[in-house]
Amino acid sequence: MATLKEKLLHEVSPGIVAEARSKVTIVGVGQVGMACAISILQSNIADDVTLIDVMEEKVKGEVMDLQHGSLFLKTSKITAAKDYSDTANSRLCIITAGVRQKEGESRLNLVQRNVEVFKNIIPNLTKYSPNSILLVVSNPVDILTYVAWKLSGFPSHRVLGSGTNLDSARFRFLMGEKLKINSTSVHGYIIGEHGDSSVPVWSGANVAGVNLQSINPEMEQQDPDGWKEIHKKVVDSAYEVIKLKGYTSWAIGLSVSSLTQSILKNLRTVNPVSTLVKDMHGITENVFLSLPCILGSPGVCGVLRQPLQQRESEQLRKSAATLWSIQKDLKL
Amino acid sequence: MATLKEKLLHEVSPGIVAEARSKVTIVGVGQVGMACAISILQSNIADDVTLIDVMEEKVKGEVMDLQHGSLFLKTSKITAAKDYSDTANSRLCIITAGVRQKEGESRLNLVQRNVEVFKNIIPNLTKYSPNSILLVVSNPVDILTYVAWKLSGFPSHRVLGSGTNLDSARFRFLMGEKLKINSTSVHGYIIGEHGDSSVPVWSGANVAGVNLQSINPEMEQQDPDGWKEIHKKVVDSAYEVIKLKGYTSWAIGLSVSSLTQSILKNLRTVNPVSTLVKDMHGITENVFLSLPCILGSPGVCGVLRQPLQQRESEQLRKSAATLWSIQKDLKL
Amino acid sequence: MATLKEKLLHEVSPGIVAEARSKVTIVGVGQVGMACAISILQSNIADDVTLIDVMEEKVKGEVMDLQHGSLFLKTSKITAAKDYSDTANSRLCIITAGVRQKEGESRLNLVQRNVEVFKNIIPNLTKYSPNSILLVVSNPVDILTYVAWKLSGFPSHRVLGSGTNLDSARFRFLMGEKLKINSTSVHGYIIGEHGDSSVPVWSGANVAGVNLQSINPEMEQQDPDGWKEIHKKVVDSAYEVIKLKGYTSWAIGLSVSSLTQSILKNLRTVNPVSTLVKDMHGITENVFLSLPCILGSPGVCGVLRQPLQQRESEQLRKSAATLWSIQKDLKL
Amino acid sequence: MATLKEKLLHEVSPGIVAEARSKVTIVGVGQVGMACAISILQSNIADDVTLIDVMEEKVKGEVMDLQHGSLFLKTSKITAAKDYSDTANSRLCIITAGVRQKEGESRLNLVQRNVEVFKNIIPNLTKYSPNSILLVVSNPVDILTYVAWKLSGFPSHRVLGSGTNLDSARFRFLMGEKLKINSTSVHGYIIGEHGDSSVPVWSGANVAGVNLQSINPEMEQQDPDGWKEIHKKVVDSAYEVIKLKGYTSWAIGLSVSSLTQSILKNLRTVNPVSTLVKDMHGITENVFLSLPCILGSPGVCGVLRQPLQQRESEQLRKSAATLWSIQKDLKL
Repeated sequence: MATLKEKLLHEVSPGIVAEARSKVTIVGVGQVGMACAISILQSNIADDVTLIDVMEEKVKGEVMDLQHGSLFLKTSKITAAKDYSDTANSRLCIITAGVRQKEGESRLNLVQRNVEVFKNIIPNLTKYSPNSILLVVSNPVDILTYVAWKLSGFPSHRVLGSGTNLDSARFRFLMGEKLKINSTSVHGYIIGEHGDSSVPVWSGANVAGVNLQSINPEMEQQDPDGWKEIHKKVVDSAYEVIKLKGYTSWAIGLSVSSLTQSILKNLRTVNPVSTLVKDMHGITENVFLSLPCILGSPGVCGVLRQPLQQRESEQLRKSAATLWSIQKDLKL
Repeated sequence: MATLKEKLLHEVSPGIVAEARSKVTIVGVGQVGMACAISILQSNIADDVTLIDVMEEKVKGEVMDLQHGSLFLKTSKITAAKDYSDTANSRLCIITAGVRQKEGESRLNLVQRNVEVFKNIIPNLTKYSPNSILLVVSNPVDILTYVAWKLSGFPSHRVLGSGTNLDSARFRFLMGEKLKINSTSVHGYIIGEHGDSSVPVWSGANVAGVNLQSINPEMEQQDPDGWKEIHKKVVDSAYEVIKLKGYTSWAIGLSVSSLTQSILKNLRTVNPVSTLVKDMHGITENVFLSLPCILGSPGVCGVLRQPLQQRESEQLRKSAATLWSIQKDLKL
Repeated sequence: MATLKEKLLHEVSPGIVAEARSKVTIVGVGQVGMACAISILQSNIADDVTLIDVMEEKVKGEVMDLQHGSLFLKTSKITAAKDYSDTANSRLCIITAGVRQKEGESRLNLVQRNVEVFKNIIPNLTKYSPNSILLVVSNPVDILTYVAWKLSGFPSHRVLGSGTNLDSARFRFLMGEKLKINSTSVHGYIIGEHGDSSVPVWSGANVAGVNLQSINPEMEQQDPDGWKEIHKKVVDSAYEVIKLKGYTSWAIGLSVSSLTQSILKNLRTVNPVSTLVKDMHGITENVFLSLPCILGSPGVCGVLRQPLQQRESEQLRKSAATLWSIQKDLKL
Repeated sequence: MATLKEKLLHEVSPGIVAEARSKVTIVGVGQVGMACAISILQSNIADDVTLIDVMEEKVKGEVMDLQHGSLFLKTSKITAAKDYSDTANSRLCIITAGVRQKEGESRLNLVQRNVEVFKNIIPNLTKYSPNSILLVVSNPVDILTYVAWKLSGFPSHRVLGSGTNLDSARFRFLMGEKLKINSTSVHGYIIGEHGDSSVPVWSGANVAGVNLQSINPEMEQQDPDGWKEIHKKVVDSAYEVIKLKGYTSWAIGLSVSSLTQSILKNLRTVNPVSTLVKDMHGITENVFLSLPCILGSPGVCGVLRQPLQQRESEQLRKSAATLWSIQKDLKL
């Protein structure tokens, strides 16, 4: 007997499988992974969003919840991957999975434990999506982007980390708050290592091309307005949000969604993301740090040659040395 | 000494306070409240989103996290309310706060405890936003919408509950899945009480105006395709998502964001929401149940006179009686 | 000497050409073609929009004008094609070009002149984009969709016409106006031949699943409210807009943009578009007429088996006969 | 006998009129006015768009055409104003009307003729929308913004001209083209008089805060890459588009839509728009020129104190003198 579907529909192109052109896989369905998912879905930039995690029940629940919102979204396919074969043909893989630091655990030990996690994830992603771009969000993001690069064997332009894109967004929000100007009109980059050692490039901070330092030269020494404190606030704000609500999620999700859009739509916008910085600013090792990058469908299309003050480039090299001292001992 | 801001900016309209035209207050920053917040922010429909909760730290943390994403949003103001005066002049107040059922607690007892919570919330909202619309999301939504109506003293068109808008979205997704058609092109309403006693109006379920029951009359008796099970799946899916991930959030957030848009932009779309149904379908008491409503800037502008089968309207009256039996004993 | 670009940028992936995944070519830059272009650009659904026309100057001017708005758009590439090689690898080709009826010219003669235009366009499109979908907007759209199908040699699911998608949008707007309900919540399909002979399927017209005819059975005979006139208004409205402003543009542009989104994002929504209707509703010839179709990345994925009243299916067959009487004499 | 509407709907809030909160009136339905209309409608930023023009038929036709696209838009009301009472309670009035230069006509004569046009428009707008903001797009925009200010009696922060917002967008597109970077990541302002005498502020042109001039100091003298020519191209491009297609429309429409969004949503973004510049950069007369302004719901909230090179501020003063020499003889 004919089913209702058969009675209702005359199929015109029955044998044809529609291949997704803008498939995004998100690895990890914790608070960060899910904030990435909802932001990407609401931005209408992907035609397939697939979630995967070792917590199978959680993945299934999150995907059901998202699917129930399909009526309000414009993404045709939202999938809970049973295994990595369901992630096949992704254009972009976003990795948010990872273990957290235990009390008293050394940083090297933490990283090594995350390397083990990545040893399971990365080869599976590259097996099924050999031409994809890997975007690492898990922390410590700069080292783990290096790890993803090494484990994938991908050319460096196809492996990047979310890096200081979020730090820079916080920086611009805080400057905007002080000036009562929308953060999209306040420009400034935080580069280098994501987190405490990040570097605010004050020489480029500007509104409408007006360099903030130039109109306030005393910022360097006296800083009566407290501008220099803004960088401290950026660094502290992650800790503060975690203290207040337990984790950070929305801002990193929105930030990753913005990077996703630039890549999927080949926009060639400039964003500070973690990229292989060897031979830049005097760095000699294979480390990943954030610099302003041009993002497009090939991944990282270019890196801006930002003139830095000596103090700034020294800080970058110091971060590079710290990262390398950990990376060199990793068992990959 | 001039501050950097004074050096940078010539203020043109210094004394003028810009009053928000599309301010939304969300009461409750749990998973549901925050999913509403991110969905409303990403939909660019409000110019001020204010969050409030008794958990002050949590509110502060969530708002900081959202503010850090300002660069990627188009809402000029996101505020953590210190007290209800910060919610003043809201056009729409979304109430997601409430206590959860304790093990072994009677439904009446649960409701009464939530009445106490609402006694704190509602008069504060109406004091500062006397012309606002109240949208209740907290469960049990139909009773609590009644409670909000009584406590507010608002005309009934300005008090509504999210009701079966989400149930209907799930219904349409599940029918769409079966037919491999986008849920926006599959139509069907679930009305009545949100949850287990909800009523699927099969007589109106259609694709492109083709009534599903009419092309499959055996649905009534035999139902070999399992269409009738879809309503059971809708009812079960909330429980299943809770079992799998612990709570539901994304779909209700997207659903509430859609209602918010219809109200703020005066769209006059038809949505099944919980409204005062006295004198409809033979109901004689002051209860709130979901029926297809026209939503616009005044709130509920109209209710559709949906012809129902006897069984369906009986179910509505039964729900009404159950709700009233609880409501009549509430201490408001 | 290094250029500013070389000084500013370190290129990371220099040899790699980013291939567009969602390229749309629009043939014809008259009012309709340009309304399609601006609507598609503002909907952020393509990553490459290429315009082509025999009026080279006009194409160049229109593209420059659009490019000057790039700052406000999210489409990375807008191109004025010099020749058809610039349209290569399009996923969707929208054909809006065509000549207009001369005074006293027979319809057959007009069609034959447009066939000559299409003989230049179609083989060039299929040569450079052999896997694309062809969406015909030029009038008479049903015949010209047939012509595009024959000239392309494409399977029928990859050739469609904008058909009555616009007529149906007008129908829903006019019904919505009468009811003071948003047209997205008022459902109804106009099918068949685009224009004067189109068929409103009153049996499916509904709000929230409530059949309009069923609550107003006298619509059939007396029709005191003037509902039946709405179809007449739909037919007349194209003429009226042309009389008032000289041509129609915005609504057809928005309508085509909506179809484009369904196809590029594989949404599987249901839209009335012109498709090969042989063996449906008793039609025996190779003609294209609008029926509710499921649109996705393969093009037309399915056609709904809409139960029609005898009068309605007769009108379809009559239209089919008329179209065939013209098509059979065309020199392709 | 009950109408279908009465049978279908139970009205809940019958007496209540929903007042628009974000009403935009566009005066003039030529190519520019209509490009503004479609861009604003597709951006979902207004809840009421009203068009008015002396060409009543044209207005009616354009509005019908837009209304037929309602299904694809999210603006509840699109109105063809019969007279200015239909524009009442607008938050923003966009003036695109005006006469064009006749062959051999002096600039003063042209301006005076447009003053006569504005004498009809402005008092009518201010009568019905006394708290609105006036955004002048008609050319010569700087003088006509002055005229609108004088005729309206509005405080200066509520009268602005689209000015060099478009010139700056073209500037950024052309620089972006040269660098293969998205124009949203290439920053630079053109200020002063809209058109031939506009001033590119090279000292602020930057990518990621990297000043273009500083890395290419020879730009000043030799300019082997042809960067300085970009300003010439900006000035020429309007003429070129007009030569190629007859007028400019899309870019100015998108530009105005962006300004509209900042104002309606109180975004406080920085945009170069024509504002009263008396007492800035040594200008002593009541003239309007473009400077980077903070736009929000009060209109122009602030003007940036941009440090200019002597040559640049001289050009501003020269423009001011030229404008004043015309303005002082106008009969207002």
